[in-house]
Amino acid sequence: MSATTDTPTLSFWFEFASTYSYPAAMRVEDAARAAGVRIEWRPFLLGPIFVAQGWNDSPFNVYPAKGRYMWRDLARVCEPLDLTLQHPSAFPRSGLVAARVAQIAIDEGWGPDFVRAVYAANFAEDREIGEVDVIAEIVASLERDPDAVLARATTAENKERLKRTGEEAGRLGIFGAPSFVVGEELFWGNDRLEDALAWAVRAR
Amino acid sequence: MSATTDTPTLSFWFEFASTYSYPAAMRVEDAARAAGVRIEWRPFLLGPIFVAQGWNDSPFNVYPAKGRYMWRDLARVCEPLDLTLQHPSAFPRSGLVAARVAQIAIDEGWGPDFVRAVYAANFAEDREIGEVDVIAEIVASLERDPDAVLARATTAENKERLKRTGEEAGRLGIFGAPSFVVGEELFWGNDRLEDALAWAVRAR
Repeated sequence: MSATTDTPTLSFWFEFASTYSYPAAMRVEDAARAAGVRIEWRPFLLGPIFVAQGWNDSPFNVYPAKGRYMWRDLARVCEPLDLTLQHPSAFPRSGLVAARVAQIAIDEGWGPDFVRAVYAANFAEDREIGEVDVIAEIVASLERDPDAVLARATTAENKERLKRTGEEAGRLGIFGAPSFVVGEELFWGNDRLEDALAWAVRAR
Repeated sequence: MSATTDTPTLSFWFEFASTYSYPAAMRVEDAARAAGVRIEWRPFLLGPIFVAQGWNDSPFNVYPAKGRYMWRDLARVCEPLDLTLQHPSAFPRSGLVAARVAQIAIDEGWGPDFVRAVYAANFAEDREIGEVDVIAEIVASLERDPDAVLARATTAENKERLKRTGEEAGRLGIFGAPSFVVGEELFWGNDRLEDALAWAVRAR
């Protein structure tokens, strides 16, 4: 067996609009490295999953008490991680363009940097990550050619791939983000990252 | 100042129908004692809060993917705590009678034992805790007089007290259970108990 086969793997399912995906995305790589676990980065869209549950908006907007709590709790989560949190002036922002670009970036080996830059833009810098121009600026800041990347991101094939990922999320029982999957074992929420890593190590 | 004034206090808000309140109720006393924190036991009903959010059932039934995940996750949570978990044949069960009795039991100093016995009945023994007879059996098992206790539990004053508690929950921003409150700081979920205890110690 190759070393790759032996390495425990965690699939990290994230949505760029998702608040708790922000701390998860920022810390998953270091935490996985410390645990000796390989990460599979899986950008997906929550929108279709929420629509299937009857929500046309974030549940944090649909249920205001839950939303008020989440922003306070997220601040408590970010503080010990030294993560800046600026309440976004728009919430949720569309993660569609960013997710399509993330697929390309992951293929090309600059996925984690792109993912973290988009989360920082949304939740630390209050930038409109739903807009193509903002995503192009982020791509450029990573010294990639925005026009070429966006062209690859918007091919029919790449769009279709994101749809298939959404169907896969449904089959895995994913209903929120961040989610972590080890084999068929599902963990939901930033605060389950450690449990998921331990599961990956044990399941190897 | 008295010793009581100096002791940090955590309010533990729980609903007998709530699945994650089960591990929280079973471990809160030991965890609080270890942290040097006093617990205020606050039974309440989630039903009116859920109805206000448009749900006539547990959100774990309203949203099946979330429900399937919860039962699996709860098993993972209970296992290292050595807590038996038997998927209840009815869910959710009404916590109304149990909450009214819990108020009396807490006043009389046998609250924690009663609370744990009811949770064990619901989630480890699959007993119908919504029924008066089952609650009476639990009261008797704790060597209290069920008839006398149930008479005190069903006075107009005790019923009204539970309603006022529900209104207080709303004012505190509580939207689920278990919840922990330190001053005006709200923590939601069994997995936030340690954070809430640390907050209580710091806030003293």
